[in-house]
Amino acid sequence: MTRTPVVDERPQTETAGKLEPLFAPHVIAVVGASRTPGSVGNAIISNLVLGGYTGVIYPVNPKTKSILGNRCVTSVEAIDDHVDLAVLVIPAPHVQGVVQACADRGTKHFVVISAGFKEIGGEGVQREANLKALAQERGLTIVGPNCLGIINTAPTVRMNATFARDMPVAGPFGLISQSGALCTALLDYAKGVGIGFSRFVSFGNKAAVTETDLLLALAADPLTKAILMYVEELSHGQQFIETCQRITHGPNPKPIIAIKTGRTQEGAAAAASHTGSLAGSDEVYDAVLAQAGVLRVESVKDLFDCAEVFVDPALPHGRRTAIVTNAGGPGIMATDACIRSEMTLSKFQEYTLKSLRYQLPPTSSLKNPVDVIGDAKHDRYRAALDAVSADEGVDQLVVIVTPQTMTDVTEIADVIRETKGFCGKPIVGCLMGLVDVSAGVQLLRKSGVPTYAFPEDAMRAVAAKCRFAEWTRRPLLGYRQFPVDAARVEAIFDEELKAGRTALVELKALEVFRAYGFPIVPYALATSAIEAAQAAAQIGFPVVMKISGPKIVHKTDVGGVRLNLTDEAGVRTAYDEMIAGVRGKMGADTEIWGVLVQKMLPRGKEVILGMSRDPRMGPLLMFGLGGIYTEALKDVAFRLAPIRENEALEMIMGIRSHKLLRGFRGEAPSDLEAIGDCLLRLSQLVSSHPRIRELDINPLLVYAAGQGCMVADARVILGDR
Amino acid sequence: MTRTPVVDERPQTETAGKLEPLFAPHVIAVVGASRTPGSVGNAIISNLVLGGYTGVIYPVNPKTKSILGNRCVTSVEAIDDHVDLAVLVIPAPHVQGVVQACADRGTKHFVVISAGFKEIGGEGVQREANLKALAQERGLTIVGPNCLGIINTAPTVRMNATFARDMPVAGPFGLISQSGALCTALLDYAKGVGIGFSRFVSFGNKAAVTETDLLLALAADPLTKAILMYVEELSHGQQFIETCQRITHGPNPKPIIAIKTGRTQEGAAAAASHTGSLAGSDEVYDAVLAQAGVLRVESVKDLFDCAEVFVDPALPHGRRTAIVTNAGGPGIMATDACIRSEMTLSKFQEYTLKSLRYQLPPTSSLKNPVDVIGDAKHDRYRAALDAVSADEGVDQLVVIVTPQTMTDVTEIADVIRETKGFCGKPIVGCLMGLVDVSAGVQLLRKSGVPTYAFPEDAMRAVAAKCRFAEWTRRPLLGYRQFPVDAARVEAIFDEELKAGRTALVELKALEVFRAYGFPIVPYALATSAIEAAQAAAQIGFPVVMKISGPKIVHKTDVGGVRLNLTDEAGVRTAYDEMIAGVRGKMGADTEIWGVLVQKMLPRGKEVILGMSRDPRMGPLLMFGLGGIYTEALKDVAFRLAPIRENEALEMIMGIRSHKLLRGFRGEAPSDLEAIGDCLLRLSQLVSSHPRIRELDINPLLVYAAGQGCMVADARVILGDR
Repeated sequence: MTRTPVVDERPQTETAGKLEPLFAPHVIAVVGASRTPGSVGNAIISNLVLGGYTGVIYPVNPKTKSILGNRCVTSVEAIDDHVDLAVLVIPAPHVQGVVQACADRGTKHFVVISAGFKEIGGEGVQREANLKALAQERGLTIVGPNCLGIINTAPTVRMNATFARDMPVAGPFGLISQSGALCTALLDYAKGVGIGFSRFVSFGNKAAVTETDLLLALAADPLTKAILMYVEELSHGQQFIETCQRITHGPNPKPIIAIKTGRTQEGAAAAASHTGSLAGSDEVYDAVLAQAGVLRVESVKDLFDCAEVFVDPALPHGRRTAIVTNAGGPGIMATDACIRSEMTLSKFQEYTLKSLRYQLPPTSSLKNPVDVIGDAKHDRYRAALDAVSADEGVDQLVVIVTPQTMTDVTEIADVIRETKGFCGKPIVGCLMGLVDVSAGVQLLRKSGVPTYAFPEDAMRAVAAKCRFAEWTRRPLLGYRQFPVDAARVEAIFDEELKAGRTALVELKALEVFRAYGFPIVPYALATSAIEAAQAAAQIGFPVVMKISGPKIVHKTDVGGVRLNLTDEAGVRTAYDEMIAGVRGKMGADTEIWGVLVQKMLPRGKEVILGMSRDPRMGPLLMFGLGGIYTEALKDVAFRLAPIRENEALEMIMGIRSHKLLRGFRGEAPSDLEAIGDCLLRLSQLVSSHPRIRELDINPLLVYAAGQGCMVADARVILGDR
Repeated sequence: MTRTPVVDERPQTETAGKLEPLFAPHVIAVVGASRTPGSVGNAIISNLVLGGYTGVIYPVNPKTKSILGNRCVTSVEAIDDHVDLAVLVIPAPHVQGVVQACADRGTKHFVVISAGFKEIGGEGVQREANLKALAQERGLTIVGPNCLGIINTAPTVRMNATFARDMPVAGPFGLISQSGALCTALLDYAKGVGIGFSRFVSFGNKAAVTETDLLLALAADPLTKAILMYVEELSHGQQFIETCQRITHGPNPKPIIAIKTGRTQEGAAAAASHTGSLAGSDEVYDAVLAQAGVLRVESVKDLFDCAEVFVDPALPHGRRTAIVTNAGGPGIMATDACIRSEMTLSKFQEYTLKSLRYQLPPTSSLKNPVDVIGDAKHDRYRAALDAVSADEGVDQLVVIVTPQTMTDVTEIADVIRETKGFCGKPIVGCLMGLVDVSAGVQLLRKSGVPTYAFPEDAMRAVAAKCRFAEWTRRPLLGYRQFPVDAARVEAIFDEELKAGRTALVELKALEVFRAYGFPIVPYALATSAIEAAQAAAQIGFPVVMKISGPKIVHKTDVGGVRLNLTDEAGVRTAYDEMIAGVRGKMGADTEIWGVLVQKMLPRGKEVILGMSRDPRMGPLLMFGLGGIYTEALKDVAFRLAPIRENEALEMIMGIRSHKLLRGFRGEAPSDLEAIGDCLLRLSQLVSSHPRIRELDINPLLVYAAGQGCMVADARVILGDR
């Protein structure tokens, strides 16, 4: 397989740049500003003013002279200035007119707080469609409608254009959220824990600004070290994936951590293929987010825990982790969590052990985890950290401190901070507890050392950072294009659809795959017993014979399949018997194209390849082992097509039972490269022909490495979904 | 299958009673008490005095007149009082003598804080053995050595006999921990979050008081609503299981929530069977804890989250959950978590929907989750909770509150509290955030309503309570005893071991299983070609023939297996050929017992049953599907023998691929009852014969329901581990 070159796909800065005035406007108009305390229109002005916004605010309200000292204007037309951003807090029916009026006066950016659009159904749907059309027509950026607003804590801007209760403190995290109410809870939680944000966007109904646009804007912001996301549904699967892949690669990769709720059930409805019936689950999103390089977490706690580790931008070189602790139990908890997260415990070099032996008391445990014993003070931690951090077999450190009687927590925190300063490796503090350790936690937070209360949380975050580091080093290969006969495929589809058939019979399906260069079992269509015998002789015995006709889908049920025919006489007899038998069962006037004569294949491992087109996400490729286990255990891997060249093998290795393809129990390993080649061809096929709604190659027979694979049976379903 | 009667196994109150003076002593002697601030001997006295201990304290220190106003005594002999509890904080070498002296004067209960025992190896091991022997001889209760101490917050006792930094507040949780340092961290965290404890034991090396004793003591304490446990290794598997089963059943079941760290690798070392090689993983502990009815959690956060839900002792009647929320996003998060935890969303009755429709604004979402919309105040929550809590399809409620601009969090909390008062169903609050919601959180905590910051945490805890409720309703069936020929089995073992054989050949293994009433494929041992033909005729054709001899383990490799013999002539020829062939390969003097003639079995589903004796835990039963998948995916279920009558089916349903036995894709369901019968017989076999080290029945062929199963091949390994 010739590899296509690595692609340089840095974030498209033009898109990001386009959104920049949204986050750093010099002039803001708040349409619907209000004097009434407790109202949303008042909260916005109050947050802007009290948050210390550095630009000019124009409250728009014809009935009031001033709000919080800011002189009101009667309408947007009355503003004698260029408005960079208009924030709308007015009843939904008036939004369209005001946006239009602002746009006429040159405003390009909008935050529509107002609810009453798509989310209420009915007239709201049309209202939102109109707004979206206006945005497209005039090239406007509209956050919302139905959102909490946006925040930028950068000292040059300090804009809190939301109706949240408070301005969050400045910090390294950018957050975008589809749920406004969740934002209020997140902000409140973050306030309590002391977590800060760079930028914050509640994007609501995303009428004219999508999560992809916002991701690019956060990626371009130098104050944002990690991007946090809450999303209920993704709009454009492939665009989302490519954007995230770009953000998480290149010279300055940024992690994206996401909570994705809601399950895709639409995909599963009325599925006509194995792939379709397996594609309706939440695992699809797991796969798509993994493909995008997004770290998926299941809860808000995990979201912040995972983000915390990126406070320190240093990425580890590998998974080898050293643990230093002053207590055995937490050391075991960390070790368990380490193994559970598929990390490895560093094995120390002899010089490290020697240094530890020399400096620690004899009852200490020197091998990883290093136990400096309960009475350790900061000097003993320093000795241990100096030795361990210098070990070439250590990629990162986790330092556990339990607040025992003798423990000088704050001094130990200071030693951790110093170690981080010189060792150049990621180091994470685990200061166990809440009250007695709080001064130490504060010190580490200020020093940019990620800190956790418990070893499992620390180790899970460390593992997430490792996976991210590995991901950033993974090359972004291109999409391989095979020379294929796409026109032939389109012609088959035209012909079949014209005849009113959306489920392709085997003969036609095999032709499609042949046009895309899949290895197909040799076959011929015979229209007489003599032709069948000739075809069999040419193909080589033994052969399989299958009836072929436009309406004959369940061939076996009508006696339309014969296996293991070993000579010409047998083939001739079989031909006549099959034709007679099928007509007997299905009626004398059944249209029969003939009999498919196929080489009887040697036994190989059976795998299944498939595609199901998700109405929202796009074409989902599936891979799994064949047979009853795959279905019972749902052990399959998904990717959204097109897939990059290195993703085919990753898909194969993504099933739990991949061991069975790699030479389990002394068997020869299977030809994974041949399967990968088929997956890439499949990716090209479904990307090039949107009329394919679902398909299965079931089974693809795979032989030992170097001996290839063969499409033995396939089905293709056409149609628009 | 006749069911054995349900067993009434309430906690053995005599054992619990025996430990009671440990938790409620009237007189405590602290041996090694000290005036030096920061020392452990000082911390104990200080904690007792400042914690408000209600009894008499005797500090024992010959060099000091008083500590914190308490007059010191020079030695335990000098105490003119009956000492209920002696706390020892003296160098390890002196512990034995002091315990002896106290015991001589009638003291029965001890807490040995001192380290320097088993955990340091060397002389410490002997020191601990001596202490243990003394305890057994004199009937003493000794917590520790090498521990933090014990706490009882009951107002009548108020004893803090630890060197932790603070006395925890009184509360509903009893905690026992093998790690003292972890305790300090747990106490500190609990202090910060406001979690209280009833009793608290750091049990250290558990020389003479085990986790089982302590569990019984906590179970008997009326102030303890839930038992929390941190344990690194379990000492007596079956005893632990039975104790936990008793505590979690009966009229007043108490939940036990555990963190279990450390993995059992010993079990896997040098395994000679499939079962043995699969039994070395952490999944074994998952199974054993599940068998015990213990809720296993993976982190300290989860431990407290899970415990919190039991603040309210009301158990739900089912899994049907109603969600009430003022925000869509968190409602979706809760729904996702609900499905992920295998709970169900309530479907409301028509009268509930009617009531909701009448009382809530038109934009509200009425079906579960009920969305009362962001501007809801407590009156709207009251309307929703009144309607939903009365619905007969609702087993429990989760109430989500996000702190939006209009939200009166504390008033809503009060409505939740009131609803709990009258509805009689479990209700859980999810007050999202940390700061703005804190007054509401405090109110709910005081009212005994479990409260969480995020929906996933709330739902996970609700699910844990449901699983616990189901567990408590599950009858504790007895251990079924089949009529078996145990003497025959012992005789076979004697004979084989005498001959120096620990791996039983198939013939002997089958005899063992026959003696225990397993369905065995009909077989006979023939010692001549004519006998073989006669045996075959009697058994019925077709037959299988297998060579049998004391040293012939790998029969196939020496040409010692013939399949599908259909007539007497064939059997005679095969006999002679096999004997000659085996002698040719293995030597002319190879001892051959003859040839095993077996009925050739019809094809059935293959399953594997096995046992591996864990040196610490006891005999571990295993069940899995046969074949390559089981091993590649490690899809097997474990239980510690003996198993109760209802556990056999639970084991079968415990594998991920159990669907394949239940009539997947139109197949006939397999005979699960027959497999269950074999598992119960296996349980009896391995419990009655401790000389069995490992065994596999592989495969057990299973036929359609009602048609039974058959042992087709088996191996048994003898030996002490």
